[in-house]
Amino acid sequence: MDFLSLFVMDFVKQLQSPTLSFLIGGMVIAALGSELQIPESICKIIVFMLLTKIGLTGGIAIRNSNLTEMVLPVLFSVALGILIVFIARYTLAKLPKVKTVDAIATGGLFGAVSGSTMAAALTLLEEQNIQYEAWAGALYPFMDIPALVTAIVIANIYLKKKKHSAADEYLSKQEYLEKQPVAAGDYPDQQDYPSTRQEYLSKQQSADNRVKIWPIVEESLRGPALSAMLLGLALGLFTRPESVYKSFYDPAFRGLLSILMLVMGMEAWSRIGELRKVAQWYVVYSLVAPLLHGFIAFGLGMIAHYATGFSLGGVVVLSVIAASSSDISGPPTLRAGIPSANPSAYIGASTAIGTPVAIGLAIPLFLGLAQAIGGS
Amino acid sequence: MDFLSLFVMDFVKQLQSPTLSFLIGGMVIAALGSELQIPESICKIIVFMLLTKIGLTGGIAIRNSNLTEMVLPVLFSVALGILIVFIARYTLAKLPKVKTVDAIATGGLFGAVSGSTMAAALTLLEEQNIQYEAWAGALYPFMDIPALVTAIVIANIYLKKKKHSAADEYLSKQEYLEKQPVAAGDYPDQQDYPSTRQEYLSKQQSADNRVKIWPIVEESLRGPALSAMLLGLALGLFTRPESVYKSFYDPAFRGLLSILMLVMGMEAWSRIGELRKVAQWYVVYSLVAPLLHGFIAFGLGMIAHYATGFSLGGVVVLSVIAASSSDISGPPTLRAGIPSANPSAYIGASTAIGTPVAIGLAIPLFLGLAQAIGGS
Amino acid sequence: MDFLSLFVMDFVKQLQSPTLSFLIGGMVIAALGSELQIPESICKIIVFMLLTKIGLTGGIAIRNSNLTEMVLPVLFSVALGILIVFIARYTLAKLPKVKTVDAIATGGLFGAVSGSTMAAALTLLEEQNIQYEAWAGALYPFMDIPALVTAIVIANIYLKKKKHSAADEYLSKQEYLEKQPVAAGDYPDQQDYPSTRQEYLSKQQSADNRVKIWPIVEESLRGPALSAMLLGLALGLFTRPESVYKSFYDPAFRGLLSILMLVMGMEAWSRIGELRKVAQWYVVYSLVAPLLHGFIAFGLGMIAHYATGFSLGGVVVLSVIAASSSDISGPPTLRAGIPSANPSAYIGASTAIGTPVAIGLAIPLFLGLAQAIGGS
Repeated sequence: MDFLSLFVMDFVKQLQSPTLSFLIGGMVIAALGSELQIPESICKIIVFMLLTKIGLTGGIAIRNSNLTEMVLPVLFSVALGILIVFIARYTLAKLPKVKTVDAIATGGLFGAVSGSTMAAALTLLEEQNIQYEAWAGALYPFMDIPALVTAIVIANIYLKKKKHSAADEYLSKQEYLEKQPVAAGDYPDQQDYPSTRQEYLSKQQSADNRVKIWPIVEESLRGPALSAMLLGLALGLFTRPESVYKSFYDPAFRGLLSILMLVMGMEAWSRIGELRKVAQWYVVYSLVAPLLHGFIAFGLGMIAHYATGFSLGGVVVLSVIAASSSDISGPPTLRAGIPSANPSAYIGASTAIGTPVAIGLAIPLFLGLAQAIGGS
Repeated sequence: MDFLSLFVMDFVKQLQSPTLSFLIGGMVIAALGSELQIPESICKIIVFMLLTKIGLTGGIAIRNSNLTEMVLPVLFSVALGILIVFIARYTLAKLPKVKTVDAIATGGLFGAVSGSTMAAALTLLEEQNIQYEAWAGALYPFMDIPALVTAIVIANIYLKKKKHSAADEYLSKQEYLEKQPVAAGDYPDQQDYPSTRQEYLSKQQSADNRVKIWPIVEESLRGPALSAMLLGLALGLFTRPESVYKSFYDPAFRGLLSILMLVMGMEAWSRIGELRKVAQWYVVYSLVAPLLHGFIAFGLGMIAHYATGFSLGGVVVLSVIAASSSDISGPPTLRAGIPSANPSAYIGASTAIGTPVAIGLAIPLFLGLAQAIGGS
Repeated sequence: MDFLSLFVMDFVKQLQSPTLSFLIGGMVIAALGSELQIPESICKIIVFMLLTKIGLTGGIAIRNSNLTEMVLPVLFSVALGILIVFIARYTLAKLPKVKTVDAIATGGLFGAVSGSTMAAALTLLEEQNIQYEAWAGALYPFMDIPALVTAIVIANIYLKKKKHSAADEYLSKQEYLEKQPVAAGDYPDQQDYPSTRQEYLSKQQSADNRVKIWPIVEESLRGPALSAMLLGLALGLFTRPESVYKSFYDPAFRGLLSILMLVMGMEAWSRIGELRKVAQWYVVYSLVAPLLHGFIAFGLGMIAHYATGFSLGGVVVLSVIAASSSDISGPPTLRAGIPSANPSAYIGASTAIGTPVAIGLAIPLFLGLAQAIGGS
């Protein structure tokens, strides 16, 4: 009873926090048809500053901390990244009207991590004075990269297996695509679809060679979000960025995050239409998956809590990065790695539903859970 | 004597304030041909942050304040918004070589409110430690929307009345336009002019139906400036944005305003050429109108001061928003609502003269007046 | 011995400072192929804010200081700006495969000043608590403009002298250019090359008239970097910008500089390819010149130190602005003033090598030198 009331109070309180209220505000003004726009260049620099700050925090923390206590959370992050893709492969992909490659790509995106969602979680933890390891943000790449690699590898293995019947399936896919009113311009990758059967077969030929893992890892690391974070991590580890961290990156963090949350709310609303074009099972998946992944991570995190003293705040961070789905760095990697998957499916599922659920439901849920466990 | 010397001293002091000096600096460097440019995306995010901050301030203030004391200032704001349009209709529109629809549109823009001008006034009040109601910024939409609605409604009523002779007048207007060297690209709405007489008549046909007020209100509310302000207002009222307000929106306010003032000074200078193209009466109107509107508002504000204790700082805010003319949100609404009005006329009048007069003359004037009244 | 150890310790410490580590970080992530991008509009506003801040600092300082102590450093700045161009004229230009106009333009760019490099030096001086005259940043235009004017004037005198053989040389130049794989798009001035011999001769005709100095000065002053700095200087001198300086421009300085350093590191790396296209002597020149120019300036600065009490920190500032080469405002002026010079040569030399050497080597060197002299 005490547990439940603590949890409910906390949940309501968190919806009023700047982070969540700007997210909801963004959805509301987009729904009301506001013409407010945050320029693309502003979003880019905000993402850069948030992830550099998270990296700096992590780097400075790792420089001053005991590396052995990171081992278990890092291993769990890798395991979660891989597991989440397999969950999608054996649930979402089996559902009617869902194409297998689309499902695998969606699993990859939900296994990958959203820097903005993580930033929101870290901010809420601080606002509520819940301790967490300063290096917790550095778990990001350990879940993000394995998820994307796994998704691309099993998608290519799947495609290779059905290669012989592929040419025919491709033709029916083309018909399917032609029936779909895809928003032109936004995701020009549709143009990447090979335009003749010959071309298609020759492309598959090259996929026949073993799927190379290193280029996928490399591409992930080169993406703007991970680059910024790893740059911050390296600068935090090897140089003395404390002065600029304290005077610039740290104080601007919450404010910039509020603008980004607004943008994400507006973006989520505008993408809902795209989801309607693909099978409705994506809606179900993207509502359930963040919470399911978060609960698995919460369980693993509690093991680390009892085994090696991983803090409850750290458990929340692990749960939230498992619950989050990538919105910035993941999509380009997947589009390059699984060109035959339909971006409307995986980006729609992640941005329109996955991210709002992760930020607006999963964060308060796991935070409340941690507080109730810690308080009881 | 004491009154006058207080006033003059204050006026000079205010021209040296960062807000006004950056405005004047912008005009000077534009006049000297500087190639300095503040990118458009930066201006957009600055306007967003300033108006969100004003909204947040207002929302937090309203949450903690007595609503009844807002009644009179709100009513006066609505009345002023409507009155200013009628003043233009019966003065500017009657002058030689001034087209009636252009005059009505100009009145609409001068009745509407400039968020940047208001931001400048709030900053100067704070710099001089003059108290004002924290919700005063929330008077903005109560003057802005009635002005735009009134302008569009009476312009359409006027156009309907002269409909039968309209087709001929349109042809002569086309000739008139062809003679004018309109800056291409900047305001592509010239292309909106119907290209054949048929089309023109059929457009007028639809205007024949009663002018619908709600869509105009809706469009005003959806504009980027009002959206940001109302978002801030709602977040301030219903959530707890204090942490992000104090750490981000409030401290950045004055600095961002200084950049925006610079841009507005440069913009004002570059628009002066456009004014030369239209009748010179626009220059007279845009020099006199801000001060006239401000004085009417100052009078009404003093009534509220004695009747319900509206602060002298609040009276200054009311006067300045009456003196200000819209530069961001107003023009697109007017262009959509009165497509036959000439944007060179109303935008030139507002941006090149109205805004510098409002910021550089009206603000110091009414501020000095309030201080002299309060001090004597 | 003590001198050397002090110097080495200091050098290593400075490489770990935020300013230098972000520069190196930018080069490293560019070398690793990161897709991180800082939008152009963000770079522009950062440059605006940094140079406005430097101008404001200078203006406020000059308002409160003794002008006579500025005389000697100002004279030395002018002399250095002119001298550096002549050094290039009589060293670089004499080397095999180096075209004389390209060499003069390169000398102009190395004589001109980089606002970002100067910002980095000022930040490092503050981080190490070394005093310098607050007006030292205002030396910038006194070196920048003479260098650009000198380069353009002597390039035009040179071109005039060889006018009679010019038409033939032009044809061979065209061949030379056609062999070079110039990065299209980046520097479209290649299109400025006159397309026929006639046109070329008639262009030279106009150059025949005396080279006008005032337009070059005017163009330099109008460039975005100098405009911002002089605006700040004027506002600092004649108005009261202290409130906005303390709340906005000053606190944001180091953080914004760190982002700009990252961009400059990435930019330097990406320009290295361009240098390969021109004679290798440019590489040698741009490695040696910053240090040589810096040492000459250091010597002159020490004269001012003993003669009029110019601070050791001020000597470092003078050395660094002599060592720096212009990357923002210089190139457009040179392209307009010496259209026949090859931008790949002078921009490549400055951005890819000159700037990293100035920031990463010259700053720590002269700073260490000053500390060792001051400490011993």
